[in-house]
Amino acid sequence: MSHTELKRAVYEANMELHRRNLVVHTWGNVSQIDRALGLVAIKPSGVAYDKLRAEDIVLVDLDNQVVDSALRPSSDTKTHTHLYRHFDAIGGVTHTHSTYATAWAQAQQSIPCYGTTHADYAYGDIACTAIMSDAQIARDYEEETGVQITDCYAGRDPMEAPMVIVAGHAPFTWGRSADEAVMHAVILEEIARMAYLTRTLRADTGPLKQAITDKHYLRKHGKDAYYGQK
Amino acid sequence: MSHTELKRAVYEANMELHRRNLVVHTWGNVSQIDRALGLVAIKPSGVAYDKLRAEDIVLVDLDNQVVDSALRPSSDTKTHTHLYRHFDAIGGVTHTHSTYATAWAQAQQSIPCYGTTHADYAYGDIACTAIMSDAQIARDYEEETGVQITDCYAGRDPMEAPMVIVAGHAPFTWGRSADEAVMHAVILEEIARMAYLTRTLRADTGPLKQAITDKHYLRKHGKDAYYGQK
Amino acid sequence: MSHTELKRAVYEANMELHRRNLVVHTWGNVSQIDRALGLVAIKPSGVAYDKLRAEDIVLVDLDNQVVDSALRPSSDTKTHTHLYRHFDAIGGVTHTHSTYATAWAQAQQSIPCYGTTHADYAYGDIACTAIMSDAQIARDYEEETGVQITDCYAGRDPMEAPMVIVAGHAPFTWGRSADEAVMHAVILEEIARMAYLTRTLRADTGPLKQAITDKHYLRKHGKDAYYGQK
Amino acid sequence: MSHTELKRAVYEANMELHRRNLVVHTWGNVSQIDRALGLVAIKPSGVAYDKLRAEDIVLVDLDNQVVDSALRPSSDTKTHTHLYRHFDAIGGVTHTHSTYATAWAQAQQSIPCYGTTHADYAYGDIACTAIMSDAQIARDYEEETGVQITDCYAGRDPMEAPMVIVAGHAPFTWGRSADEAVMHAVILEEIARMAYLTRTLRADTGPLKQAITDKHYLRKHGKDAYYGQK
Repeated sequence: MSHTELKRAVYEANMELHRRNLVVHTWGNVSQIDRALGLVAIKPSGVAYDKLRAEDIVLVDLDNQVVDSALRPSSDTKTHTHLYRHFDAIGGVTHTHSTYATAWAQAQQSIPCYGTTHADYAYGDIACTAIMSDAQIARDYEEETGVQITDCYAGRDPMEAPMVIVAGHAPFTWGRSADEAVMHAVILEEIARMAYLTRTLRADTGPLKQAITDKHYLRKHGKDAYYGQK
Repeated sequence: MSHTELKRAVYEANMELHRRNLVVHTWGNVSQIDRALGLVAIKPSGVAYDKLRAEDIVLVDLDNQVVDSALRPSSDTKTHTHLYRHFDAIGGVTHTHSTYATAWAQAQQSIPCYGTTHADYAYGDIACTAIMSDAQIARDYEEETGVQITDCYAGRDPMEAPMVIVAGHAPFTWGRSADEAVMHAVILEEIARMAYLTRTLRADTGPLKQAITDKHYLRKHGKDAYYGQK
Repeated sequence: MSHTELKRAVYEANMELHRRNLVVHTWGNVSQIDRALGLVAIKPSGVAYDKLRAEDIVLVDLDNQVVDSALRPSSDTKTHTHLYRHFDAIGGVTHTHSTYATAWAQAQQSIPCYGTTHADYAYGDIACTAIMSDAQIARDYEEETGVQITDCYAGRDPMEAPMVIVAGHAPFTWGRSADEAVMHAVILEEIARMAYLTRTLRADTGPLKQAITDKHYLRKHGKDAYYGQK
Repeated sequence: MSHTELKRAVYEANMELHRRNLVVHTWGNVSQIDRALGLVAIKPSGVAYDKLRAEDIVLVDLDNQVVDSALRPSSDTKTHTHLYRHFDAIGGVTHTHSTYATAWAQAQQSIPCYGTTHADYAYGDIACTAIMSDAQIARDYEEETGVQITDCYAGRDPMEAPMVIVAGHAPFTWGRSADEAVMHAVILEEIARMAYLTRTLRADTGPLKQAITDKHYLRKHGKDAYYGQK
């Protein structure tokens, strides 16, 4: 993929995030990695969506060094590159402050799997990270946000639940590409909204029965999946 | 009705579901039966609404065998055909994951008849099915989803409440045609939203007085109905 | 005003109700009276908004007799004419099942005056009627709905709070014209939504201090009003 | 800046408020000051947004005297000029009755800093004023609304939290210009909505850890800020 193509793909994914009403003002950013080039394309910091152009997308390497770009990358860049370094299977990352997912983050609660809508995309809870320690904040806030996330996936395949909420902050999602990461951000917001309504409708709602979770997750993602076209 | 006309009607009903904002991503599907032909037309599995074409609609018989179609039918097809086999009066079925109806499904609660908006369309509670047993899940998940639904209508006319919520999952609605099934999906979502607000506003709200339920249901659906034009 | 002009005004007001997203399906209707002619123009029963034409608007007299019209009037016509017969100052009436106002109706609760947004339009509570008695339902349901409403205004100027919620049912609003009645329906829905949020945010919120209510209501509606242009 | 340019800027900011769906009917107004001229441009009272023209914007001096204008200024003008006289750094003021911020005002509660979305724009609580005393209401209601607000900022930089909610009433926001004040109104509404969801999801949610508040506020607003482009 050429630099221009990579920037174009990331530009389109950022605009899709905007069109889906998941961002207010300049909040939110999408990136994609080209692992052959060792480069990540990401939204520039603090640029309004209606001013953003494909050529404004910033390229950085996995050590966060800017390559061939005029603007500063998103202030969350170190979180994105941390995820690319630790999750081999992912190709795109999205960060939003989408309303319902952020409310769960602020309440510092994981989202239980209450139904099949959730089970179709995430196997088990959507984890809420620990709150960051003073030492972490002092060290390198954005890098440590990545550490908070990867700590939630010790022994868990990141593609089994390609979405997480950072305590006191907001969600991150990922996928095989920037497009898929944005789709997961859209779906997380809807899952978070349904879970909010479920919890406030009946506070003691328990998680979905394990056998149904297994059935739904595996009919879409298992080796004998039969959802969608071949 | 020709195959082409049947596919066209089902295509239009699926697109209406999308336009009404009842579906996120590829969630949701609509079908219609031609009882003379013994054929059901249904959305293909996992195809995005903005890519869907009338000719992509899949025809299946009541034993779920694909007829004259290139794509796989919706993974929920067996639930649709189960309903057509058991509810003689229905001509269309809709499945969505609409937000408020799904929240009631996740909370595993029937929707009480709190007011005349509900009574105009459903006589009595909108039932929430039982949660599926392990034996059912192991047997045939989608067929058994249909069984869960028809079990709620033992001794009850399915047209008296053409909408149900499947515990832990999401709603199904039906009608004399695909169009009417979609209209009932739109109305169920609004009833579910009003009921959510009513319950959270005043937790101990009781159901609407029976005499008002009777009055409203019968002025629209009874033999002396006087709502609408002759 | 000619019959054609009256029908046109009521047609436009009904379409405005639709454009403001206060109606789902065919729910809701608007009327206007020409007191010189003794005629009320009202939406026909059960006609979809996207099919409605100005010439479909039905004229009835104050005894509910259809005049010069091909279609049946709204099934709620007797409620409208009851209000015109009892409230001399009003020229238009609107009925909706708007979401938040209907939730308060279903919870069978009056809306307390929690803030200045409410006080700017309604002086004191927005009343919820009593639930209808069996005798009333047996007598004449739609006429008695009018009785429920006028019973709330014994000793109270109907223009002081041009909006009411009918227990178990939904809101009615009125004004000097059909247009103003629609504007009050829009405003009631927003007041009802803010009051829902206030109540669920802090259950023991008390009503706005009386002196502020007086100040806001009178700066818009008192003899020394100074809101708006002269 | 010419009178025409000042009116044009305030006109555009008022229309942006309308486009962002923060106002129902004629509620809400935006002003901007030209400190060299000693003039404030503000929306006229009670004019509908779809009728508003740039030349309708009213100019007043800091003593609320109308200059070179045909229409009456907003009934909230004295609140705006009070803020311009007491907060030297501000250039624009916005008043809305936006839904969630108004719900917090009606519940008479300050909005705690629950997360980084809030910390990015307001350092610490978004204050709710005291309820107005009888003496204040009798004196000069709109001027005293300004006093209520400035009383919240004794010893606090108004730009550190450019947004406040007036008890029983609604929010005011400000910024270096009318545009920035409108942007802060948009952001306050989203913060208020997220805080509502957080509180109703988990009633005992505490404020965000101080060290994270400091980090987020300072990375955007501190002397070593690194958010956005240079």
